[in-house]
Amino acid sequence: MKTKIKILKKLPVMKNHHSELLIYDQYLMKIPLIKKWIETFPSRYAVKSGEKLKSIDQLPSHLEHLIKNFSFAQKIYILGGGSVGDFGGFVASIFKRGIPVVQIPTTWLSALDSAHGGKTAMNVGGFKNQIGTYHFSEEVWVIQAVLETQPAIRLFEASGEFMKTAIIGGESLLKKLQSWNWKAGKIRWSDLKSFIELKYKIVKQDPFEKKGFRYQLNLGHTLGHVWEAHFGIPHGLAIFHGLLFDIAWSVQLKLLSPQRAFDLMDEMPWSYVWDEEFKKKTDLKIYSLTEAKIRSYLIKDKKNKQGLISFTLVEKPGKVLIKKVPMEDILREYRRQQRTLQELYEEL
Amino acid sequence: MKTKIKILKKLPVMKNHHSELLIYDQYLMKIPLIKKWIETFPSRYAVKSGEKLKSIDQLPSHLEHLIKNFSFAQKIYILGGGSVGDFGGFVASIFKRGIPVVQIPTTWLSALDSAHGGKTAMNVGGFKNQIGTYHFSEEVWVIQAVLETQPAIRLFEASGEFMKTAIIGGESLLKKLQSWNWKAGKIRWSDLKSFIELKYKIVKQDPFEKKGFRYQLNLGHTLGHVWEAHFGIPHGLAIFHGLLFDIAWSVQLKLLSPQRAFDLMDEMPWSYVWDEEFKKKTDLKIYSLTEAKIRSYLIKDKKNKQGLISFTLVEKPGKVLIKKVPMEDILREYRRQQRTLQELYEEL
Repeated sequence: MKTKIKILKKLPVMKNHHSELLIYDQYLMKIPLIKKWIETFPSRYAVKSGEKLKSIDQLPSHLEHLIKNFSFAQKIYILGGGSVGDFGGFVASIFKRGIPVVQIPTTWLSALDSAHGGKTAMNVGGFKNQIGTYHFSEEVWVIQAVLETQPAIRLFEASGEFMKTAIIGGESLLKKLQSWNWKAGKIRWSDLKSFIELKYKIVKQDPFEKKGFRYQLNLGHTLGHVWEAHFGIPHGLAIFHGLLFDIAWSVQLKLLSPQRAFDLMDEMPWSYVWDEEFKKKTDLKIYSLTEAKIRSYLIKDKKNKQGLISFTLVEKPGKVLIKKVPMEDILREYRRQQRTLQELYEEL
Repeated sequence: MKTKIKILKKLPVMKNHHSELLIYDQYLMKIPLIKKWIETFPSRYAVKSGEKLKSIDQLPSHLEHLIKNFSFAQKIYILGGGSVGDFGGFVASIFKRGIPVVQIPTTWLSALDSAHGGKTAMNVGGFKNQIGTYHFSEEVWVIQAVLETQPAIRLFEASGEFMKTAIIGGESLLKKLQSWNWKAGKIRWSDLKSFIELKYKIVKQDPFEKKGFRYQLNLGHTLGHVWEAHFGIPHGLAIFHGLLFDIAWSVQLKLLSPQRAFDLMDEMPWSYVWDEEFKKKTDLKIYSLTEAKIRSYLIKDKKNKQGLISFTLVEKPGKVLIKKVPMEDILREYRRQQRTLQELYEEL
């Protein structure tokens, strides 16, 4: 994996050849600056972003269109958020047995996380990311003028993924988070690089997830993915709740002292980000899920190898660890947290 | 790519775990010896072999079944011929971002060629092998007891692929071919290893087809694939006719002397294999294809890069070369050979 990251102020002027195909989120045509840029590509394919795009059911008709019209394509530019990146990356990885990709993420989540690291993914039968490939992008362009066109709420919806990165990275990243203007949906642009670099630092140690290092990045994701898939809540919010689950379990397992957990919660920018009422509503919703339902999702988890799931826990900011735990232990802890939360909210 | 080849007399006794999934050609259940072996797998999935299996249209329903029932699979055994291998290999390469494969080819074509070399492939919109992956098998088991259950005609239908390998390999392989009992559908078992080794020698130099060495193995395939796709004739017969095309063009381009071409034709076992009447019938059929139709296929050829096709030509047995030729040159040569053949058969 030799991905070149470019952090740019503006969309670059392109000399596009028809053998370079652009796959883009059709929504972006509503933004004049981006529309103008899209239209410089003679070969382009619009898609509607969202989980439906990643459904394997739609893949044959997309591929038929692409092969019919762009079988000459030698490189794919992908302009969009996570779902467009996952879809476009998967298509590029199987198109004529793989052609190079340039990713241009247009959402905080993709700019921070999913556009990097070479993982592509598609959903099967309502289960997320069941199939996919490793296909490392040739380049990833993170462009300020593009990302700043997002509505403020998108940063809020990405908060869990930023917090995850900061917990793994340690105090200096946590401090950066606190200084951002979350309500206005603005990050400090110069901070973004350190967050992206942390991801590459981990991915480089284990690009194909053979050694387990990459599991670090799954902090908050085991339960987070279940809630995201079941309730359709934004990824970053689902991960935020997943982080709270993982932190509470880390305390329960005596890996993280209650004092450190308390400090960590204090350092996380969640009080800047979250409204107490909204959090309560979300908590009650996500913990209404039955244990049986959680089990049915965990069985499909890619990290589940014969009933053992590689689970990421927290020792302190800057130090996470991976433990292979029986699926039943996760379910027991889920019941415990479910009970605790219900009691808490009944008291209030 | 570190594939281990095992050349075995019999199907080995297995200790199968449910996490090892067998994908197999349902036809094989008609052969008691193989049926018994298949039934030792607690996790297994039957498919119907053929090009339809490789159609992208069917992929979603296969994947839904596989994810629903075998999401725990850690390794896939693939028992079948070329289409089952292409399909099963593709599925394994995208299943949870790739799980290991053991290929057990059950046809001459797959035992000689397609089970080796790590290429998987699926068809899109009626065009062959438009998408796929490189996914090198952990092991390939070539099993005499299995291959000898094939009807005699299968060896005839694979003849072109054996001849191709022999032309690339040189005199010693050509000699081996002549000694086989083609009519009875029997090869000399001890010869098979040298044919397989030649393939690996080439694949190792260029596993991902970046440097062009692997194009050697495309001898006979550019036109062969068109005829196979259009008329549905067996791969090995289509390749046989593709070889004749490539040899004739090599003479035309003065790469191969007429005398050497004549000697080569004499060394190829085609006179043992082919009935003159059948050859004439096939010739007239395949050369009835219009130039426009040939063009529509060549445009989709994976070796076609902006109108230039990497075409494999013959200098002498044991020496082929790859030339980037304009698609229009291939079409001109097609017209020439079409005319020559029509004149020849009119004279007869």
